[in-house]
Amino acid sequence: MGDFQAAPQVDLAKPFCKWVGQAERIDLIPRYIATAVRHSISGRPGPVYLDLPGDVIASSLEEDDLSYPQRVEAPPAPQVDPASIKAAVAALKSARQPLAIIGKGAAWAGAEEQVRRFIEETQMPFLPSPMGKGVVPDGHPLSVAAARSYALQNADLVFTIGARLNWIMHFGLPPRFREDLRVVQLDVAAEEIGSSVPSEAPLVGDAKVVMAQMVAELEESPWQIAADNPWRQALDKEKAAKQEATVPMLESDEVPMNYYRPLQEIQQLLPHDAIIVTEGASTMDISRQVLDNYEPRKRLDAGTWGTMGVGPGFAIAAQVANPDKRVIALEGDAAFGFDGLEVEVAVRHKLPITWIVFNNNGIGGGPSSLPEGASYPPNAFVPNARYDKVMEAFGGKGYHAETPQELRAALQASFDSGETTLINVTINPESKRRPQQFAWLTRG
Amino acid sequence: MGDFQAAPQVDLAKPFCKWVGQAERIDLIPRYIATAVRHSISGRPGPVYLDLPGDVIASSLEEDDLSYPQRVEAPPAPQVDPASIKAAVAALKSARQPLAIIGKGAAWAGAEEQVRRFIEETQMPFLPSPMGKGVVPDGHPLSVAAARSYALQNADLVFTIGARLNWIMHFGLPPRFREDLRVVQLDVAAEEIGSSVPSEAPLVGDAKVVMAQMVAELEESPWQIAADNPWRQALDKEKAAKQEATVPMLESDEVPMNYYRPLQEIQQLLPHDAIIVTEGASTMDISRQVLDNYEPRKRLDAGTWGTMGVGPGFAIAAQVANPDKRVIALEGDAAFGFDGLEVEVAVRHKLPITWIVFNNNGIGGGPSSLPEGASYPPNAFVPNARYDKVMEAFGGKGYHAETPQELRAALQASFDSGETTLINVTINPESKRRPQQFAWLTRG
Amino acid sequence: MGDFQAAPQVDLAKPFCKWVGQAERIDLIPRYIATAVRHSISGRPGPVYLDLPGDVIASSLEEDDLSYPQRVEAPPAPQVDPASIKAAVAALKSARQPLAIIGKGAAWAGAEEQVRRFIEETQMPFLPSPMGKGVVPDGHPLSVAAARSYALQNADLVFTIGARLNWIMHFGLPPRFREDLRVVQLDVAAEEIGSSVPSEAPLVGDAKVVMAQMVAELEESPWQIAADNPWRQALDKEKAAKQEATVPMLESDEVPMNYYRPLQEIQQLLPHDAIIVTEGASTMDISRQVLDNYEPRKRLDAGTWGTMGVGPGFAIAAQVANPDKRVIALEGDAAFGFDGLEVEVAVRHKLPITWIVFNNNGIGGGPSSLPEGASYPPNAFVPNARYDKVMEAFGGKGYHAETPQELRAALQASFDSGETTLINVTINPESKRRPQQFAWLTRG
Amino acid sequence: MGDFQAAPQVDLAKPFCKWVGQAERIDLIPRYIATAVRHSISGRPGPVYLDLPGDVIASSLEEDDLSYPQRVEAPPAPQVDPASIKAAVAALKSARQPLAIIGKGAAWAGAEEQVRRFIEETQMPFLPSPMGKGVVPDGHPLSVAAARSYALQNADLVFTIGARLNWIMHFGLPPRFREDLRVVQLDVAAEEIGSSVPSEAPLVGDAKVVMAQMVAELEESPWQIAADNPWRQALDKEKAAKQEATVPMLESDEVPMNYYRPLQEIQQLLPHDAIIVTEGASTMDISRQVLDNYEPRKRLDAGTWGTMGVGPGFAIAAQVANPDKRVIALEGDAAFGFDGLEVEVAVRHKLPITWIVFNNNGIGGGPSSLPEGASYPPNAFVPNARYDKVMEAFGGKGYHAETPQELRAALQASFDSGETTLINVTINPESKRRPQQFAWLTRG
Repeated sequence: MGDFQAAPQVDLAKPFCKWVGQAERIDLIPRYIATAVRHSISGRPGPVYLDLPGDVIASSLEEDDLSYPQRVEAPPAPQVDPASIKAAVAALKSARQPLAIIGKGAAWAGAEEQVRRFIEETQMPFLPSPMGKGVVPDGHPLSVAAARSYALQNADLVFTIGARLNWIMHFGLPPRFREDLRVVQLDVAAEEIGSSVPSEAPLVGDAKVVMAQMVAELEESPWQIAADNPWRQALDKEKAAKQEATVPMLESDEVPMNYYRPLQEIQQLLPHDAIIVTEGASTMDISRQVLDNYEPRKRLDAGTWGTMGVGPGFAIAAQVANPDKRVIALEGDAAFGFDGLEVEVAVRHKLPITWIVFNNNGIGGGPSSLPEGASYPPNAFVPNARYDKVMEAFGGKGYHAETPQELRAALQASFDSGETTLINVTINPESKRRPQQFAWLTRG
Repeated sequence: MGDFQAAPQVDLAKPFCKWVGQAERIDLIPRYIATAVRHSISGRPGPVYLDLPGDVIASSLEEDDLSYPQRVEAPPAPQVDPASIKAAVAALKSARQPLAIIGKGAAWAGAEEQVRRFIEETQMPFLPSPMGKGVVPDGHPLSVAAARSYALQNADLVFTIGARLNWIMHFGLPPRFREDLRVVQLDVAAEEIGSSVPSEAPLVGDAKVVMAQMVAELEESPWQIAADNPWRQALDKEKAAKQEATVPMLESDEVPMNYYRPLQEIQQLLPHDAIIVTEGASTMDISRQVLDNYEPRKRLDAGTWGTMGVGPGFAIAAQVANPDKRVIALEGDAAFGFDGLEVEVAVRHKLPITWIVFNNNGIGGGPSSLPEGASYPPNAFVPNARYDKVMEAFGGKGYHAETPQELRAALQASFDSGETTLINVTINPESKRRPQQFAWLTRG
Repeated sequence: MGDFQAAPQVDLAKPFCKWVGQAERIDLIPRYIATAVRHSISGRPGPVYLDLPGDVIASSLEEDDLSYPQRVEAPPAPQVDPASIKAAVAALKSARQPLAIIGKGAAWAGAEEQVRRFIEETQMPFLPSPMGKGVVPDGHPLSVAAARSYALQNADLVFTIGARLNWIMHFGLPPRFREDLRVVQLDVAAEEIGSSVPSEAPLVGDAKVVMAQMVAELEESPWQIAADNPWRQALDKEKAAKQEATVPMLESDEVPMNYYRPLQEIQQLLPHDAIIVTEGASTMDISRQVLDNYEPRKRLDAGTWGTMGVGPGFAIAAQVANPDKRVIALEGDAAFGFDGLEVEVAVRHKLPITWIVFNNNGIGGGPSSLPEGASYPPNAFVPNARYDKVMEAFGGKGYHAETPQELRAALQASFDSGETTLINVTINPESKRRPQQFAWLTRG
Repeated sequence: MGDFQAAPQVDLAKPFCKWVGQAERIDLIPRYIATAVRHSISGRPGPVYLDLPGDVIASSLEEDDLSYPQRVEAPPAPQVDPASIKAAVAALKSARQPLAIIGKGAAWAGAEEQVRRFIEETQMPFLPSPMGKGVVPDGHPLSVAAARSYALQNADLVFTIGARLNWIMHFGLPPRFREDLRVVQLDVAAEEIGSSVPSEAPLVGDAKVVMAQMVAELEESPWQIAADNPWRQALDKEKAAKQEATVPMLESDEVPMNYYRPLQEIQQLLPHDAIIVTEGASTMDISRQVLDNYEPRKRLDAGTWGTMGVGPGFAIAAQVANPDKRVIALEGDAAFGFDGLEVEVAVRHKLPITWIVFNNNGIGGGPSSLPEGASYPPNAFVPNARYDKVMEAFGGKGYHAETPQELRAALQASFDSGETTLINVTINPESKRRPQQFAWLTRG
């Protein structure tokens, strides 16, 4: 029985949380910042919190009284001992229906070259996690993203490469996984080993270094899953079926539009090195299926905890850090409501981000018109809001698209303009994604 | 020497904070809610926090298994003993330059009738706190709001009626107050007595009940400050001078407008029982001087802690609770940025709130145009934003006003429309309020 | 259905909790201490927490730079309005089987004179809470402590005088109370009104002031429960039966002793103004029945939360503050184990406290000898420990008493000695208290 | 300038802290415990907190409904890449005055064989941290513990092997260390790299695995510090001088005894595999100098945060886990006061622990007799307490030793008895340790 409570999960917030009071010498602030950075990038990377209160920020000192610590170097990358590598490879070879799950740990470690070589050497089918997309390009023939449910349910062994079997991966438990599932787990944090399902061959270390060890081992004794292996054949068949079932939605000319067709338009116009920020429920989930990532670290979404309101900040930071890359912020209308006025910051700083709001009149889809009576559903928004006007309010460019053709034209105009823009895309409130075999949190 | 740190202040968050887990029988939720309400309205009123997690909300039970607690009655209102009343009156009578400070404690207690009678019986000059405005109407001849600094500096005794000598009142300390200041303090919370300045005649109790005791005592032995008393004369003179100095600003025809003229326009069109919600720094502060409150509990602002982003929620709640009253939400542009997209909720529920955004291009006033270089000041916003378009995005009515005449017309149209509206008012970024004798937090 | 979870309870820790950092000017420490004291004694009195870290304590300043705030005065004592008094009296008069429950709120308010007059004027039966004992002397003919269960179960109305219907009072719920119980509640904290059972006539104010108002009202229109009233008769009968049942235990010559006989010995030798500190489960509970308090504020025990380890600190503080009073610390052996080495402090400061340890070999009674095997029960202590030697280790006087005669002699010697002493009293591990009709937390 | 505040330190409490409510299925408790264990032993090992409230503990279920997770395996031990090993060795070789600091990280990793081989291969002088003692036996000729201050001040490079440059190591800062100190740092936690002083050759990994890599590298290209190297010569000279200065204290026949002579007696009688638990300030510090550890993980003390009161729990756990080893609990009298009554547990469970209390009448040494007046110093205890009687109170054996001969006899008797015993050792309150060049926290 799968159950949300079946697996004890632990909040691994980074332990560095510091309040700097006036009592602490302000000449030490550079060192506190260095410590904060060190904690942020070491071990499992993540946010840290350093609180500099008003009186500290407003105080001053002579430049000469200030000394700067050395630049915080990238943390050393631990590798695993050779015996563990051999054990992991042996386990993988013994599996009949192995599946690699590639997570954001592989992305943050910069392990893309090593992971791609591993996948290609072994010809092992793989599934990326939402933020692990692009470590191996999404269009890769061994990707089974389109056959996700089938792959998870039938794999007899999963090799998690910087990915966690948390709620996004249904805790690795039945009915979404086999009862007798075996796990080979690569994680930078020893605490994670076996946290939900026991791991028979744990690899604790940096994904880049450890995957290089794996590839070296494979070079010494090569091993590959044949193309005519029944497992690969079955996956390919399922993939083809699922992709075929999606085609009508991707090509639909219906107006108002469903979710798939506009994503298809975006996909066709986006450069391969674009950075895709996305948040919202359906918008985020379906775009994960349709929008391909060709490079790692190019997709930023609500993450493990599903936090809403992060999109504008992510997009602004991504564009500032990557002035030459195309950045899009793809948001559901509910998600945009959390922090949408931050588009002003992008206009102010002349950041050519393209916001795309998938507007279906509410959370999960609202009404087509305002009812007269009192029974207004709590998830509904005012129908036909025009988020493009929010962008225009601040001097950015706004577009409104109700048809695939209008969307294509708006995208092209936005990309050509070099300005901050927002495209309000009317989505059919009745639009649903493909029927799902299981509810998200698998209470069955 | 006054100093922000000179007076230890304590966060008196309401002690009721409860997380209801699934283990607790859901049939008890009505009782938890009753307890939360009781804590919210008892003693010093304030917010409470009751957390009902998703699994509790999503659970169900038979109506028959549910029992409802009795309605939570208004808490009993303690009065003070007769000797304390006599001591307080004696102290007041012995003062040469007394000043009443009327706070929101008087408003929440519903003490307006008793306070007005006290002020009129004694002819004591008074100053309202920001949310104590309207307990006695702002236009009352004994109000010294226009001579605030002079009154605080020269009073030899203050009678705080449900008001606290916190940072808003400069802690009751020099140089904003006399070194030898005497205090008669009425507060519902015994902890507050003498918290910043010792109180020589404390009155712990409900403001309505205690002020009724004060009035009864005055009826037995009447006492009044004569109109020709030098203290009243000096205050009147200062008031007249300050009001005269404000006239040019109130009547200025300059475009872009300063802060005062548009507030004057609003003041002239607002009905006397309107509810005024306001947030932002200058917008909130200056509107407090110009916009009169004629009734208590009709002004909602950022409150003691200066929390930003509360305006839309306050305005929506005020209009829902008072469908027949005019509600305006007066916001600085920076304040509006926190939660401004919530105007959608008002449109959706057809609430005829009038939002008025005082737009001066940033926090404390930004630039008139976007500079080309890198040195964009952190407090600046994109110039000439059109917040009216944000309202239009959701189907409400938007107006843009650059002149007094345009503002007057927009207000009239908004009030006549019965719809949710927003007026974007262009304010001169160079506009300042009257020169202040002291910086806000009195570090001198 | 009574149930521990049936009544939402709230932790009303005092909201003042302050950490003083070095950044805060150390000349302000006196003000922080004044604020802490004010919070401790205001409203519902209770502990506060003020943290002065090492670097603050170790810093220094010139005496001249230090200014002391005024002494923190006792907080004003709010009274209730005359109508509430009349309503409360009317409710009491309308009851057929009223019961007063006198709590520590009455004790801390110094309301003993007023409460005693009220009880005597009305002839209302009363029950003291553990720390409300002595407000009216325990031997008073109207005390129904000996008939506690019967009184609670049959009262149709309780008048709580500074007492709470919390877990100690079974939340005021069936089966320990009547389903149709009515409540007249006097409490200094408005939040408490109706917190478990609705209160039909709430009195929010200081117990001393409000009980004076009640007495004044009674003087105007006297009212009394007649001696031949069936309710008083029934209570007297139940009291007599219970007291009679206790006599054999109080007079028992059995060795090892039960709990009652040694308490009887203590009771006979203690002066009426002695301060009794007690902690432990059975020791605390049974001593509450047997040891009479003749004055208020003379019993200090583990309190509402049943905190263990507080006894030595309470006894030491009580003796320092009352050098001329007899102080005993009566402790179960388990309770003594928490902090027992603090007896050293009493010896060092020559405090003539008499510690009495009721030693029954463990928590709730342990074995008579150490078993050989592995199945040692977790609640057991090493048998026949000699806590008197712990006292001797520090130079105090130790006594060991196995019989009533030895205990009487030891007590007499201890009281005569003027020294810190400890009497180790051997209690039969099999000794039980009177059979109880209900388990403590009333799950039935 | 060294300063306590000079180095930002971070509390790295283990992030696993879990409260198990009744809502969580009790059949999952084994999994929660497994998760807690995994967190405790993974990464940097440390305590975790798992809260099982009363209602959970008191609930029950059928054995069949319970499933047990697999045993939590020892976490995988990450190693470092070969280039880092070479970089670290190169740095060490380039130093003129290198010093190894061996910490408890080496002990917990079980790295003793690898560390000993490294020290012997390189002939590098080493200093153990308090709980790193015994990884290399204390009597080793390359230990510079006796010349600690000199070694720290003059080393041009330190190689920290599972040791941190925290306050115990003076943060690695002047004046206790050279301004131009270089650091090669081996730590299991990447966050720690460079946390106080930058590390030029970081080694993040398991101490046992990484030291094996270091030894393998040395075997390939051997390298050694010659016996006639000036740095070794200088250290040997300083060691000899310090040891010679200690001899008179170690051999002193003075009565009352100083700290050194009784420790010398203990040292001579203790078997080499004894477990030494110690707490208190002088007692813990001086015993660290005099009592040699011959094996790792045989010394348990107050640790990084100097927590008092841990001794009895440590000793009891150590004896239960090591029934065949000699366990002593060496405690200052102040430290014993925190939890000393726990000796009862040891007697109850027949654990042959020998408690030794160094009794100098107070914290840092108290008075020889109780003064009459009021000015009793706060650090003083009642003179001449007899902690042996505390042990006798519970049936254990107590001894009192005022001379070296009495102590030797008591120790011998204790060890021979096979019982729980306590030896109260009278220490001269005037006894001081060797004069220190620096105050502990190096504010100079």
